[in-house]
This record gives sequence, C-alpha cells and structure tokens, in this order.
Amino acid sequence: MAQVIADRRDVDFVLHEQLEVGEFSKTEKFAEFTRKTVDLIINEARNLAVKEILPTQKIGDEKGCAFDGGKVTVPEEFHRIYKLFREGEWLAMNEDPQWGGQGMPRTVALAANDFFNGANYAFIMYPGLTHGAAKLVEVFGSDEQKRIFLKKMYSGEWTGTMLLTEPEAGTDVGALQTTAVKNEDGTYAITGNKIFISSGEHDLTENIIHPVLARIEGAPEGTRGISLFLVPKYRVNPDGSLGEFNDVVCTGIEHKMGIHGNATCSLTLGGKGNCIGTLLGEENKGMKAMFLMMNEARALVGMQGFCCASAAYLNAVNYARERIQGKHLLQMMDANAPAVPIIQHPDIRRMLLKMKSLVEGMRSLLYYHGYLDDLKHLSDDPEEIAKLQGMIELLTPIVKGYITDRAFEVCSEGVQVFGGYGFISDYPQEQLLRDCRITQIYEGTNGIQAMDLLGRKLGMNQGKPVMDLLAEMNRTIAAAGEIPALEDFVADFKAAVKKLGEVGMHMGMTAMSPKVLNAFAFAHPFMEVTGDVAVAWMLLWRASIAGRKMDGAGKKDKVFYEGQIRSAEYFIKSVLPITLGKMNAILTNNGAAIEISEDAFGGR
Amino acid sequence: MAQVIADRRDVDFVLHEQLEVGEFSKTEKFAEFTRKTVDLIINEARNLAVKEILPTQKIGDEKGCAFDGGKVTVPEEFHRIYKLFREGEWLAMNEDPQWGGQGMPRTVALAANDFFNGANYAFIMYPGLTHGAAKLVEVFGSDEQKRIFLKKMYSGEWTGTMLLTEPEAGTDVGALQTTAVKNEDGTYAITGNKIFISSGEHDLTENIIHPVLARIEGAPEGTRGISLFLVPKYRVNPDGSLGEFNDVVCTGIEHKMGIHGNATCSLTLGGKGNCIGTLLGEENKGMKAMFLMMNEARALVGMQGFCCASAAYLNAVNYARERIQGKHLLQMMDANAPAVPIIQHPDIRRMLLKMKSLVEGMRSLLYYHGYLDDLKHLSDDPEEIAKLQGMIELLTPIVKGYITDRAFEVCSEGVQVFGGYGFISDYPQEQLLRDCRITQIYEGTNGIQAMDLLGRKLGMNQGKPVMDLLAEMNRTIAAAGEIPALEDFVADFKAAVKKLGEVGMHMGMTAMSPKVLNAFAFAHPFMEVTGDVAVAWMLLWRASIAGRKMDGAGKKDKVFYEGQIRSAEYFIKSVLPITLGKMNAILTNNGAAIEISEDAFGGR
Repeated sequence: MAQVIADRRDVDFVLHEQLEVGEFSKTEKFAEFTRKTVDLIINEARNLAVKEILPTQKIGDEKGCAFDGGKVTVPEEFHRIYKLFREGEWLAMNEDPQWGGQGMPRTVALAANDFFNGANYAFIMYPGLTHGAAKLVEVFGSDEQKRIFLKKMYSGEWTGTMLLTEPEAGTDVGALQTTAVKNEDGTYAITGNKIFISSGEHDLTENIIHPVLARIEGAPEGTRGISLFLVPKYRVNPDGSLGEFNDVVCTGIEHKMGIHGNATCSLTLGGKGNCIGTLLGEENKGMKAMFLMMNEARALVGMQGFCCASAAYLNAVNYARERIQGKHLLQMMDANAPAVPIIQHPDIRRMLLKMKSLVEGMRSLLYYHGYLDDLKHLSDDPEEIAKLQGMIELLTPIVKGYITDRAFEVCSEGVQVFGGYGFISDYPQEQLLRDCRITQIYEGTNGIQAMDLLGRKLGMNQGKPVMDLLAEMNRTIAAAGEIPALEDFVADFKAAVKKLGEVGMHMGMTAMSPKVLNAFAFAHPFMEVTGDVAVAWMLLWRASIAGRKMDGAGKKDKVFYEGQIRSAEYFIKSVLPITLGKMNAILTNNGAAIEISEDAFGGR
Repeated sequence: MAQVIADRRDVDFVLHEQLEVGEFSKTEKFAEFTRKTVDLIINEARNLAVKEILPTQKIGDEKGCAFDGGKVTVPEEFHRIYKLFREGEWLAMNEDPQWGGQGMPRTVALAANDFFNGANYAFIMYPGLTHGAAKLVEVFGSDEQKRIFLKKMYSGEWTGTMLLTEPEAGTDVGALQTTAVKNEDGTYAITGNKIFISSGEHDLTENIIHPVLARIEGAPEGTRGISLFLVPKYRVNPDGSLGEFNDVVCTGIEHKMGIHGNATCSLTLGGKGNCIGTLLGEENKGMKAMFLMMNEARALVGMQGFCCASAAYLNAVNYARERIQGKHLLQMMDANAPAVPIIQHPDIRRMLLKMKSLVEGMRSLLYYHGYLDDLKHLSDDPEEIAKLQGMIELLTPIVKGYITDRAFEVCSEGVQVFGGYGFISDYPQEQLLRDCRITQIYEGTNGIQAMDLLGRKLGMNQGKPVMDLLAEMNRTIAAAGEIPALEDFVADFKAAVKKLGEVGMHMGMTAMSPKVLNAFAFAHPFMEVTGDVAVAWMLLWRASIAGRKMDGAGKKDKVFYEGQIRSAEYFIKSVLPITLGKMNAILTNNGAAIEISEDAFGGR
C-alpha cells in the first residue's frame, strides 16, 4: 500500500521506538496490548482509512451536505463508511469495555485516529463528536442517563454533538442566552438558538444526542450560571426505544470554506415549547464539565489539523518524486541536460524538509500528549498523577493552537510544491488547505489558546508543570548528548531552552505587572516559540534514538534514521534561529499594538 | 462611502505625501496629471470599484464560469461591469494615447488598479490580461499587427491572453511542445495544447487575441528556440472585420480553489489543422519578449495578492470595531463588566497591527515599483535610465514573491479576526484567502522569484542595483534620523540594513562556490528577509513624513500620522527581530535540505 495520509514507518517509530507503547502490556490495565496487537490494530485502522474512507474525502467536499426542510442529508457514500467504522468498533477505542469501549491505551487510539482523520476528518467528526458527547455522559451522567444513552453512543448507534455557540456567544460562552426551566418531573424545558453545531443534524443515525449549555432560570450571569443538559433529538423511552420528536429543529446549514462533508448546523431548541432535557452533572457546573473535557477535545482538533498536514506532506513528497520539470541546478547551462524530478531542486527540498520536520515533530508531540494521559491512568501515586495532569494541561494549548497554525503552513507548502496543480481541485492539496483552516478557529480560537497558555498554564501551581516539562527536555538533552553526531544540535537546543525559560519568566512577570496588556499582545508569539521549542525537543529526542540505533540497523532503517537526524538538523539549524528572533521580539515588550489609538487603525 | 477594498486616506498618502505624484505635472509628458486630476481619477476608479464591481465578487465566486461544448460563459453580471469598465477607458490607463491609452503615470494607474483588483480581481483579469497582450503587440508587433489589433485590445473590444503553459511545461517553459510551421504567405500553422490559460475563452467579447509561445519547426531545443505568435480566436480581415474561426478550441476549464470568476482554460490549437498565427517580433526571440514584459506582469500579480490583503484588513478592522464579544482583559474578574468590541482585545490588536503594517508597507512598495518606471520614462539620461531599470528589476521578485507570500498571511489573519464567521461563505474573508492563494504560484512560482532574486538580480551589473537600493534606504535613514521620535527605530532599521548587506554578500559568495546548492536552498528565506527590510524601509519612510507633519496637522491627519508611526514601530520592533533571526538561519549555511538522501524523505 502506498504511503498516504500518514507514513506508517513514522507512526510505528513514535509508538514503538520513541514512546515504547508495547511496554504498556506489562501493566494489568493494558495487558492485552502487546506490540503485536498494537500492530494489528494499526493495520486494521490503516486499511479501513486508506481503502474505504479516503476515497470519500473528495466526494464529501464536492457533494457536501444538503439541507431541505429541516432535514440534512450527508453524501450517500458516508453511510457505507459509517457502517464499516461502527462494525470495526473504532468509536470508543480507549474507553471502558463496560460501556462498549475497547480499553486501548490513548496513544494507540491516537495512532489509529491519525489514519482516520487524515482520510476524511469531516466524516470522522460524526463519530468523533459522538465520542466526546458520550464521554460527558460517562463522566457526569446519572446511572439512568448512562444506561439509556452510553452504549448506544459509544457503539455509534446514535451520534452526539456539543451545543455551545450562539450568535452572540462564541468565544465568550458566558454570554449565552439559551434557557432551561425546571419541569415538575425534574426534567427541564429548553429554549434557545445554537449555531455552528458540527454534526448537528444528519441522516446517518436515527437519533442524535445533544449535550447543551444553557442557563437555568434565575441562575447567575456569565459562566457561573451555566448548566449542562442532555437533549436528544428524539426522546427515549425507559426501554431505550425512540419516543416523540423533541423539538430540536435544524434551521439551516452553513456554506463554508472547507469540511463540506460535515453539516454545520443552526439549531432551534424548543421553538414550539416542546424541548425537554435532563441535567447532566450539577446545576451551574456546566463550564466545569466543559473544562474537564477540554484537553481531549482540543487535542483532537490539533490532530485534525495535523492530519491535513501529514497527508499534504506525503502527497507532496510523492508528487515531487514523480513530477519531471526543469534541469538540475548544476546542469542549468547545459542545453542538453534532461529535466529531473522536482525533488532534486533545492527550493523544493527546502519546502519538503520543512514540512517533514514539522509533521514528525508534531506527530510526536500529539502522541506524547496522549501518552501522558496513559501514564496518568496507570499511576496510583497522587503526586505523579498531579504532575502528569499538569504537563497535559500545559501542553494542551500548544497541541491545539501551535499545531494547527503550523499545520496550515504545512498545507500551504503542500499546495506550493504542486505548483499550478496545487490550486486545482483535481488534486487533494487545495482541499487539505481549506479543511485545515477551521482547526485554528474552533474549540477555542488560537488566540484563546495563547491566552490559556499565558494566563492559566504558565503560572499554574507556581510554574511546576513548566519545570516538569523542562526537566523532561533536559533528559532528552542528556540522552542526545551521548551521541557525538548530535553534539552541535544539542548545544543549539540547550540555548533555545534556556532562552525560552527567560522569555517565560519575562512573560509571567509582565502579565502580573501594569503592562499586562503588553504581555497578552505577545501571548500568541509566546505560544509560537514554546511550540517551536517543543517540536525541536521531539525532533532531538527522535534523532537521539536514530543516532543510537543507526550502526546496527538494516538498510531501510538506516535511511529512515538518516531522515530523523536530518529533520532535527533542519529544524534546529534553520527554524530555531527564527524562534530566537521571535523571542527577541517578545523581550522588547513593545507596546505599539496596545498603545495605538483605535482610530489610527484606519478604515471605517 | 465606507472604507472598503483600499483605505482612501492611505492611497492618497502614498500618492501625494510619499511619492508626490502631483509633481509629475511639471513635466511635459504628464502635464495634465495635476493633483486635482489624479484625485478625480481615483474618485472615479473607487466609485466604479466599490459600487459596481465589488458586488460581483461573491457572485463570481458562487456562480463561477460554465463550460459547455467548447463555449465558456462568465457570470452574467460580469457583462455589465465589463461594459462600464470599457466605457470608463480603464484598460490602458498608462498607455500611449495614440493607441487609445490615457497616458497616465503608472503610479496613478496602480492606485486605480488597487481599487479595481480589490473589488474583484478574477474579473479584472479579463481586461488585465488584455492589457498585457496588447502591450506585447505594441512593443513587438508590425505596423499591420498594431493597426489591426491594438486599439481594439486597448479599448477592450477584444480581449487578450497569454498562452505559455503546457502540461509538461510549467515552470520549465523551454520544454514546450507547441509547434509553428511556416506557410507560404508568411503566416504560421500552429499546433499544440495549452493549459491553465486565464481568460482563455469567455463570452464577454466577440474575439480573443492569444499571444502564443511555440517552437518553429527545426528551431533549437529549450528556451532558445521559442518564438512568439499572435493567434486570434477568429481571424481578422484586413478591414478589421471578423473572419473565420481560427481553430482555437477550449477543451475544458479548471475547477479550482479560488478566482472562480475567471475561466482557466485548456486550449487546443490547430486540432483540425486550421490554426493560423503571425509571428510577433523575431524568430526564436519569444522568451526575450516575455522577459521584457515580466516586470510589469509580475508586479500585477503582486498587486492582485496585495489587494486581497488590503481588503481583508479593512474588513477585519471594521468588523473588530463592531463585533462585541468578551470583556476587556482588565475587567475579566468583574462579573458585571460589559462585553466590548473585539478591537479592544490585545491579541486582536496584534493581528490588526500586523496586517496594517504589512498592507501599508506593501502598498508603498508596489507603488514605488511603478513610480520608478515613471521616473525612467521621464528621464533622458541613459545612466539614470539604466539605474532605474536595475532597481525595478531587482525589486520585481520582491514585489511578486514576497508580497504575495505576505498577502496570503494577511488574508489568513483576516479570517482569524472573524473567528467562526471567517470560515463561512456569508462573509468575504474566506474567499479572499482562497483567491489570494494562486498569486504565490502563477507568473512564476515564488520559488522561481527567489531564484531570480538570488541568481539574476543580486549580482546584476556587479551588484549596482543593490547598491542603488541601499543608497535609497540610507536617504530614508537620514530623513528619519532628523525626527527625534524615530531615533530608536532608525537605529534598529540601520542594523537590519547592515546585516542584510552581510547576508547578501554571503549569499552571493555561496552561490558562486561549490556550495551553490546550499545557497539556492536559502533563496526563498533570502527573498523573505530582503522583502522584510524593504517593507521596513517603506514604513520608516512613511513614519518620517508623518513625524515631520504631525505638529501642524489637523485632528484627522494627526490620527492618521499616529497610525503611520505605530505601523513602523510594530514592524521594526516586532517583525524585524524575526527577520534578523531568519538572517542568522541563512548565515548557518546549513546543508540539511541538500544533503538528505531522496529516500530519507519517507513516503512512497
């Protein structure tokens, strides 16, 4: 099978050589997930993704979803792959078998999702959001809610969504207007309008379960008065059969730049006064529930963006080997020199190596984020658990914000490598660029991610997660330092880590000073440099493994390991100097963006 | 009229305060173009652009062009605006009145085109390409060719194109396969297939005139054997009336990411052996003719990309003033604090000021490139003319390659400022991003622009154009140095110019060394840093004018001038440090991209 979507060798490298997930099988919890089993899982996921799902990607883009009189239909080809996806039991890979999950390590599930999302993430959002909604039920639901909804959601018999955004409440969730009034039987009458609801209405399943953020009559304003409700499209009888329509009406779907295969819906709840929901969790604790799910949800968006980049890279490198155009630079003056594959041109190589290093570094970072969660679930030491949780939370804005920003850049280079063909819909590159663009916006814009990093994560627990992360980086420095070929890179990386420490200190101090607005004007650049250092870390980690194994390796592995060392070299030598420049810009603490008067922006 | 497309105050600033184009009216050639006349021209262009053309932008995107049995129809709304555009005589603004042109300074025409392209550049490409094709006829045509074609093209009665690309000959023009066989009457029988032909077929006019690159039977291989021909869709009788169909058949149009309003055609010439062309210029000198037109054509593409960015910025700043979302950062903890316009949020301000500074700097650079051409036409000193031509050619790859790269970045920020609405087709931002993307590819990919800068322009005439440009920058440094408020920026800019000189020297030396491939792997980064310094130069120039005029200015002007100083401050303090980082990366001369083996890129 050709390498498309995600490079299998690279996926295996992260799973087995970098994170060594086979070691998990020594634990009771993950005993059955030996390396062999993990390989089989990835084989199956890759097969389904490449052979069945990938062919629907362009179809989804071209056909999109149709809206007619409240009904939404997805491209008909989606029905078949949804069935296959359900049959393969891929929806709840890392959930508890008690509720129909497969009990896999999250790291392994991420690797499978790497293929699935890369194949057609607009489609994967239907089961993907179902997973998130079901998780809310699992964590916050009553026994009754779990009994009725959970298995049907984890099995994909019903899908799920998340009803958060309203026209005047996007980033500012606390401004939402949807209301809940308690009925005598303890249920709530829900009334409101929600927009931008991914998978909000469709014809894949007979019921759709909506977790809804709403304000109970009389609750405090802002986020402190928001509660979470479970609102099915069709009510469910105690025996699990479908009851009457629950007055959740789709009033339209958005026409948008990308992810045409996923229906982005406007929903009116209780327009006829007939929408009933049950409280999920406690009154006024809706935002807290949201926050608990946020690390996973945001990492998923990071994965979506990343998968576009990974696919764009493989398409680009495969195309660059086949496309013959122009002479080799050293033969320019020879009229008889043949045209060569464009992978031989220096500027194409620059683009490809930039893409490669970013894709590899981001893959490692995404898997690592999930791996920390696995370690957390395997630990019974509260201190260790707190430490791992801190690192997960610290990395979440990087994994969402930084990765989707960089993924979009990679997708754009992917268009560029294809030249004019990159702009044409006959080739996949332009769709990947369009699909990727929303990942920088939804699930908290990347500006919000940057604020999260600076405002919440940097100073969390007196900076302990930052220290813990730096300690991990130092372990990599020590390991890489033992390999002579990496000496030079280690020195550069060390300097970057040291400077990041200074920048972090500066940002923290500024954020607590009267110049707090300046600090937040540099929140996004701060996220950029932190992300760059994190990617450099992952690449150096990878290179240190490659360097250690190089000597005894077979021919194919040698080439792969060479690629690892080159990725680290490129990123450390050609990207980190730019990162240092960005750090210098941050350290100026320049206030132009804050001090400029509103009128001086021009326009009007 | 609201400020959309291009900020009128900013356009006027560049024309009258930075470049002082009113001074041109002191010359014989441009005597009638007083400031008052220039203002009237811009008024008219802006009116037509905003009121008539802009409303067709989204229509063009949604309807696109239709292909049916060799015929292409454009959105019907395009017919009306094409008529208005012709009636206004906007097609040949800066051409010789002898052939129907308006004889305007190019700088003024650029300002008018700023509005036209920003209103709907997919449409403007129909007259825009006509202008370029007609110019080829004017410069290289015989008296007969000029008599028959020129006025009809400059008036827009017929449109023009450029038939260059073939399936196996994109960047590598020399690989083209289209052939020309001389007929007894001196005309040529043309046979071949061309692709990616913008405006190649449509129903706006009754005839379309195609300049075609082809190889005369027996001509040398490669670019040395390419000739230019004039091939009309319908033959033209000596009296100017239309003759028979000339066997130029449109075989299809591309479905593409953006510029849907412009038909990108595949054309088959002489499929029935019945396509006749006349030689334009000399045999085997086709590429030379192309090169002579290149500065203008590439600057136009820079303008197209730039206009998307300019429009995206104005949309963003206007939206940010209106969109209420979230509390002010300093009132975050106050539960009763009101939501504010998002322009008050630091991260939005950062994005807006980044966009603003880039848009202003790029506008100045684009106009300046045209202004040099005006100066050239006004000079009768061969040395001065050579100097100006050198600077124009040096700046061309920056004006095309750097500007379109940065324009795409600005368009992407424009999406981000809109949040979820940025991704939705109800708002203009996502279309601007899609439309902008092709400008980095066509008329020579930006990789080719970077090679042009490094391989041709840097060392041209022993580096004299570079020296001339640096001398101009030093004039700005001197002028800005007289304004105390700019002291700090001047110092930073000076340091960047000095370092750019070192980097240029390094690149030049490396390109002539055995490490030539390394040099070309850094060609694109070199274009980036050169462009950054050029933009910083323009912004400092602007700020020095603003600083000088600030004291005596009225209230509105004061605000505008404040904005100029802030743009310079932002770019010099927050972007130039990154530029310096990019220069450091270049100076490492790291060879990872060259040395990595082809197999180590993975994939397959």
